[in-house]
Amino acid sequence: MAPNQPALAPELRTPAPNQGNIVARFIDVRAYTEQLAAPLSAEDQTVQSMPDVSPTKWHRAHTTWFFETFLLQPNLAGYEPFHPQYRYLFNSYYEAVGDRHPRSERGLLSRPGIAEIASYRRHVDEGMLELLGRPLPPAVEGLVELGLHHEQQHQELLLMDIKHVLWSNPLLPAYVDSPASFRGDGDAARWITHRGGTVEIGHDGDGFAFDNETPRHTVYLQPFAVSERPVSCGDWLAFIDDGGYARPDLWLSDGWAAVRSEHWEAPSYWLRDGDCWQVFTLGGVRAVDAAEPVCHISYYEADAYARWAGQRLPTEAEWETIRAIHRPEVFGDVWEWTASAYLPYPGFHPAAGAVGEYNGKFMVNQHVLRGGSIATPSGHTRPTYRNFFPPGARWPFTGLRLARDI
Amino acid sequence: MAPNQPALAPELRTPAPNQGNIVARFIDVRAYTEQLAAPLSAEDQTVQSMPDVSPTKWHRAHTTWFFETFLLQPNLAGYEPFHPQYRYLFNSYYEAVGDRHPRSERGLLSRPGIAEIASYRRHVDEGMLELLGRPLPPAVEGLVELGLHHEQQHQELLLMDIKHVLWSNPLLPAYVDSPASFRGDGDAARWITHRGGTVEIGHDGDGFAFDNETPRHTVYLQPFAVSERPVSCGDWLAFIDDGGYARPDLWLSDGWAAVRSEHWEAPSYWLRDGDCWQVFTLGGVRAVDAAEPVCHISYYEADAYARWAGQRLPTEAEWETIRAIHRPEVFGDVWEWTASAYLPYPGFHPAAGAVGEYNGKFMVNQHVLRGGSIATPSGHTRPTYRNFFPPGARWPFTGLRLARDI
Amino acid sequence: MAPNQPALAPELRTPAPNQGNIVARFIDVRAYTEQLAAPLSAEDQTVQSMPDVSPTKWHRAHTTWFFETFLLQPNLAGYEPFHPQYRYLFNSYYEAVGDRHPRSERGLLSRPGIAEIASYRRHVDEGMLELLGRPLPPAVEGLVELGLHHEQQHQELLLMDIKHVLWSNPLLPAYVDSPASFRGDGDAARWITHRGGTVEIGHDGDGFAFDNETPRHTVYLQPFAVSERPVSCGDWLAFIDDGGYARPDLWLSDGWAAVRSEHWEAPSYWLRDGDCWQVFTLGGVRAVDAAEPVCHISYYEADAYARWAGQRLPTEAEWETIRAIHRPEVFGDVWEWTASAYLPYPGFHPAAGAVGEYNGKFMVNQHVLRGGSIATPSGHTRPTYRNFFPPGARWPFTGLRLARDI
Amino acid sequence: MAPNQPALAPELRTPAPNQGNIVARFIDVRAYTEQLAAPLSAEDQTVQSMPDVSPTKWHRAHTTWFFETFLLQPNLAGYEPFHPQYRYLFNSYYEAVGDRHPRSERGLLSRPGIAEIASYRRHVDEGMLELLGRPLPPAVEGLVELGLHHEQQHQELLLMDIKHVLWSNPLLPAYVDSPASFRGDGDAARWITHRGGTVEIGHDGDGFAFDNETPRHTVYLQPFAVSERPVSCGDWLAFIDDGGYARPDLWLSDGWAAVRSEHWEAPSYWLRDGDCWQVFTLGGVRAVDAAEPVCHISYYEADAYARWAGQRLPTEAEWETIRAIHRPEVFGDVWEWTASAYLPYPGFHPAAGAVGEYNGKFMVNQHVLRGGSIATPSGHTRPTYRNFFPPGARWPFTGLRLARDI
Repeated sequence: MAPNQPALAPELRTPAPNQGNIVARFIDVRAYTEQLAAPLSAEDQTVQSMPDVSPTKWHRAHTTWFFETFLLQPNLAGYEPFHPQYRYLFNSYYEAVGDRHPRSERGLLSRPGIAEIASYRRHVDEGMLELLGRPLPPAVEGLVELGLHHEQQHQELLLMDIKHVLWSNPLLPAYVDSPASFRGDGDAARWITHRGGTVEIGHDGDGFAFDNETPRHTVYLQPFAVSERPVSCGDWLAFIDDGGYARPDLWLSDGWAAVRSEHWEAPSYWLRDGDCWQVFTLGGVRAVDAAEPVCHISYYEADAYARWAGQRLPTEAEWETIRAIHRPEVFGDVWEWTASAYLPYPGFHPAAGAVGEYNGKFMVNQHVLRGGSIATPSGHTRPTYRNFFPPGARWPFTGLRLARDI
Repeated sequence: MAPNQPALAPELRTPAPNQGNIVARFIDVRAYTEQLAAPLSAEDQTVQSMPDVSPTKWHRAHTTWFFETFLLQPNLAGYEPFHPQYRYLFNSYYEAVGDRHPRSERGLLSRPGIAEIASYRRHVDEGMLELLGRPLPPAVEGLVELGLHHEQQHQELLLMDIKHVLWSNPLLPAYVDSPASFRGDGDAARWITHRGGTVEIGHDGDGFAFDNETPRHTVYLQPFAVSERPVSCGDWLAFIDDGGYARPDLWLSDGWAAVRSEHWEAPSYWLRDGDCWQVFTLGGVRAVDAAEPVCHISYYEADAYARWAGQRLPTEAEWETIRAIHRPEVFGDVWEWTASAYLPYPGFHPAAGAVGEYNGKFMVNQHVLRGGSIATPSGHTRPTYRNFFPPGARWPFTGLRLARDI
Repeated sequence: MAPNQPALAPELRTPAPNQGNIVARFIDVRAYTEQLAAPLSAEDQTVQSMPDVSPTKWHRAHTTWFFETFLLQPNLAGYEPFHPQYRYLFNSYYEAVGDRHPRSERGLLSRPGIAEIASYRRHVDEGMLELLGRPLPPAVEGLVELGLHHEQQHQELLLMDIKHVLWSNPLLPAYVDSPASFRGDGDAARWITHRGGTVEIGHDGDGFAFDNETPRHTVYLQPFAVSERPVSCGDWLAFIDDGGYARPDLWLSDGWAAVRSEHWEAPSYWLRDGDCWQVFTLGGVRAVDAAEPVCHISYYEADAYARWAGQRLPTEAEWETIRAIHRPEVFGDVWEWTASAYLPYPGFHPAAGAVGEYNGKFMVNQHVLRGGSIATPSGHTRPTYRNFFPPGARWPFTGLRLARDI
Repeated sequence: MAPNQPALAPELRTPAPNQGNIVARFIDVRAYTEQLAAPLSAEDQTVQSMPDVSPTKWHRAHTTWFFETFLLQPNLAGYEPFHPQYRYLFNSYYEAVGDRHPRSERGLLSRPGIAEIASYRRHVDEGMLELLGRPLPPAVEGLVELGLHHEQQHQELLLMDIKHVLWSNPLLPAYVDSPASFRGDGDAARWITHRGGTVEIGHDGDGFAFDNETPRHTVYLQPFAVSERPVSCGDWLAFIDDGGYARPDLWLSDGWAAVRSEHWEAPSYWLRDGDCWQVFTLGGVRAVDAAEPVCHISYYEADAYARWAGQRLPTEAEWETIRAIHRPEVFGDVWEWTASAYLPYPGFHPAAGAVGEYNGKFMVNQHVLRGGSIATPSGHTRPTYRNFFPPGARWPFTGLRLARDI
């Protein structure tokens, strides 16, 4: 997230975790999770509004489980697991760790309650601080880094998920009183051009990166241009007004099926209000602002919009190339769908051990998103960062940026 | 519930609500609901473990809604509803009251939280005490009675539902430390005989009854006998050991389909433990006691058991006839499935107004149960009381008693 | 079906099977099935339009399987089954016979084709004629009778099912050119009264009856009246025009759920045509005739209509009592839903052996229908005959007759 | 299909459609469809065994509809459509043509029967021959070409689909007596290497190609090797024996979910026979031949196998590069899954008009397959040909070829 970007809420911000030593970063990241959960009641933290969503308290426990399972149990002699069944309850998807509670039933767990989960976090934090006080082999230190980045990802998931939970309640309660406001001027978009040819993309090994960002490799690009700003709500209103949600010729076949079966007629969280549109945000319901980037759209909608606009989505290689050479302030309000399916880079090898399941096994049926959103923790992303979701997902903070051939 | 019957937990018992004046009864019944909810955390009270189950806090709110909607709003001038959307949120199934929140999504409501629901209850209680302090027309007084019996029904539902919620958690937490224990001697059952002929069943109008218990009317019975005790867990173990759950010839066709698709091999809440069986109760997991009545079985299982035993289930007319002439202590540990489909009595007319939806509209696809259970509030039932559930339901406190032709 | 009743189509009628000797009846009944299938192409006979429907060729094969399995294999020494896998393919629901092809996948069987099924029928007919040429013990003769009545039931099912198959095709093809026309004068209904008291119902053992019609037994009736004619389409149009399908207060809860989820707004097979209604029949699409009995309604609709009319449905005991004392011509156009759930009569015992699965195991979740329809083979029914379907079924030839207390 | 390749069955082969003039090719292609349908009964041609499968007679009608809709109606003055509702019934997915019969209900259409569909084909063939006898603008001629290639695609679909239909029948009937046999020697695979760098892929415009094969464009490859032969059944047996279907670490997450929910333990159409495996083919059931290419596997299985073998799947660019420089005989027995998601080539524009829906709108949620199979009509494919299916599809004739980095 760019330094001058308005945050989710000023009081919820932390320093970037890549600065300072690892102990300080550990404390900061762990504290920020608790800060994000603090406005939520015990009831709020328990509900799972759809299978893709996890309860807040589950996020708090699972991120803790990650440190307990991958750091403390193998590396801290004498460490006592907090509870014998948490290994099962809070395993997300690691087959190598063993069986786990079904994902779609996370909302059935009234126990452990939020107080017990706070104790769990403190117990593991104490173990971790003990461990971090010792000299650690690089592989172990790498896992700590991974755990922190993992927790940051769940910080954004926590916000995505609680937004959906609150939205599922007819009372439409707000998460915070002072919602984030997006930047954006709504001016006509300018285009950033590139003459194509071979470029390098992927992480170069300097600093932390997920395994899916590697190896750095050469790709060949045709000449192209990318818009300097993401598509705005004002742009999107023109798409709606032009019948964008009613014209099958604009849509991929699977996208059109989703429009019909899910009754889409606007981005998720939009509410029709006579001739206007309101939007549900973490700060409650307010009018749609034409100047802000459109958010909470699926890949299908991004693709249909681009077709309607006579343009296309950028590939992730195009995006990364432009991102690397342009001023960073124009990225980071919304995750931007790319035209690229989420696939391994040439020469990709997943990380060794159970954490090899972190990214690689999801490389099918998803599309890559680039950038970051107002819900992304400060300092978490990089130009090479590859986020990914299935093409029908709308609950992440997703928008789009146009591209075209030149 | 019989006077000498061990209660759910001594501290949770109230005096029978039919004694004393209506104000005292109102206070007692309302307090007992809160007493039942008291051991449960905010998280416990929020979870809905299947569509048939309602969260504890929903029961607390809906019983309050009943008084607000049917008593205070029409009869207490100047009464201010506690919250404008509660009419929608906490309507269970009254079409005449208007739209309502979908039943299967009650578990998505993190708000209102338990504190706000406690305030809602106090607000309505104050209004009710004001109303009850005035002279009331008999129709209004009848609605207050109905509201109290309604709340008592939800007290049992609350216990049924939270048992299922806790059971859905791999930690299998207990609701209370001191579980109820059933009576039962496990002796060979004695038979109570009746020579048949015309009898009268249904409520005679003396004291409160639901509309579905009326009118009192004549039915003709063939000679029959009914067992003096319900079927015990020991009896049921013999059924299991004889392959009862593996022999399609014992089952109704729909029952056998349920055995296969639901993988039934014992009553609900039973857990295989090597060669023995454990059972999950509101007091946690303990060994099955052969002497206690079997509980948490579907109509399909009751019917299959009776066929296996060479007997049958009693009709509700047979049951009521025997109940009326026999000592009451042998009834009330478990609700007893009868052979009778839940249908209107000859000449039945539902109560006038919206509360006419209370019973009548459910008279299809269900079977009648008679008696009462350890979770039924003291004094709530009568010999003419007709409980009802779909034939596949297992989460109520359901058992059976055998009958036969003579 | 009454003697003077217009048949489905004159050329499709057979003499009543209860007349003449058993060989002649066997030949007639078997021939009539083939006569019913004759207008249908190989493609028509193969399609299964919903799980409840069976393909025509499956009916032809299954009725044959009944004779092969229950008569020829146990009783005709040296009989060679036509095909080793037909025992599996054409078993409907007899657990005692073994596994079977799933009901919902009957439409996946392109083989055996209709020619092979015709051979199968001839093969079994030859065996049966050989068997019937010998002196048979009464139990075996009873099974032959059962097989013939079974085949007659499937003759009506064949017509019900093919009607649904053809209806599922946007071309709406007709089964025959000369459709049946119903009797009915549309006059105001007269009422047949009865003073109540004890009556006897059930089969008295003279002639064939299914096990579910026995034993004959006493029931007690309150005074009542039954309409002399079934409800007509004209009556039903008034119900529709009065918002019958839009008023939840008229409906059972499960019925209203079906209205909403299935989008009911008229009987099945009705087609809105501007301000009028057309109806799809076995003879194609024609205008609804106000004078004819309404047909293809569910129990839920029958019950809602009766409530709208300020009346109720008769119980099966009332129906049978009136039927037994009234002129028979007024019964038989449509199966009439009764208020009675399908349950065993007091003292009921299913027939011995595998055919004990014929009726008894379906005695839950269904309602009794009485009478017969234009699709019922001549002579097949009796005043004591108990037909049954789940309350949501609309593809049988179902109507209703009103009753009321007096 | 390579010239020296053993065909599906010798009597079912046609000359390659790209030879000779368009009239001759039209006659040949249309005749071959009828030849493929000829062994099938009316019943066989009617069944739809799953939503992805279409009945044989539907393929015969839809390919005819293509010519009627896109060629005859716009271009042959005075042409009378064969039937007014066929435009609706036999539209597959062309939104621009209007509404259509639901895909999953194609098996409900008993009418039109196979004789009427044969008449439909003759009627359209006559119109087409009249049209083809005239001078045609290039755009129209291009549509005729497209229609012929479209019909060839459906020839393979017809075989894929009828195989699944026959497999759904417990009798496991054969389509033909003389099944195809695959080539394959089962020798250790040799590797074809490539040093990488920029290459060109996509169709160069010489001869027919689908729009999805264009434009030809530059891509950058890392050095790689591709196996000279596809993976054989012998190879696959080693994978099975090594627990390939029981080790989650080998699978993509969505793939492992499919293994569990679909109970995969071998390729589709394989049947366990004690310690051996049989396979259902269009010629009936026979032993699995270790030397033949494995067939009827999903992308998930191909990917898991490659991981188990320590290799990977080739990208479509790698595949096409090797195919273009290697002897063609080693391609064409099975469609080969590639690592590439099905996405538009840089600069892709769909064809103009309704036929623009042919390929482009499916470019999401699918993976590219290259090569061709024994069911592919002779001469239909090209090195640039892009076939595509969802990653879980197993009913196409799908196999794999390994690749690796060097």
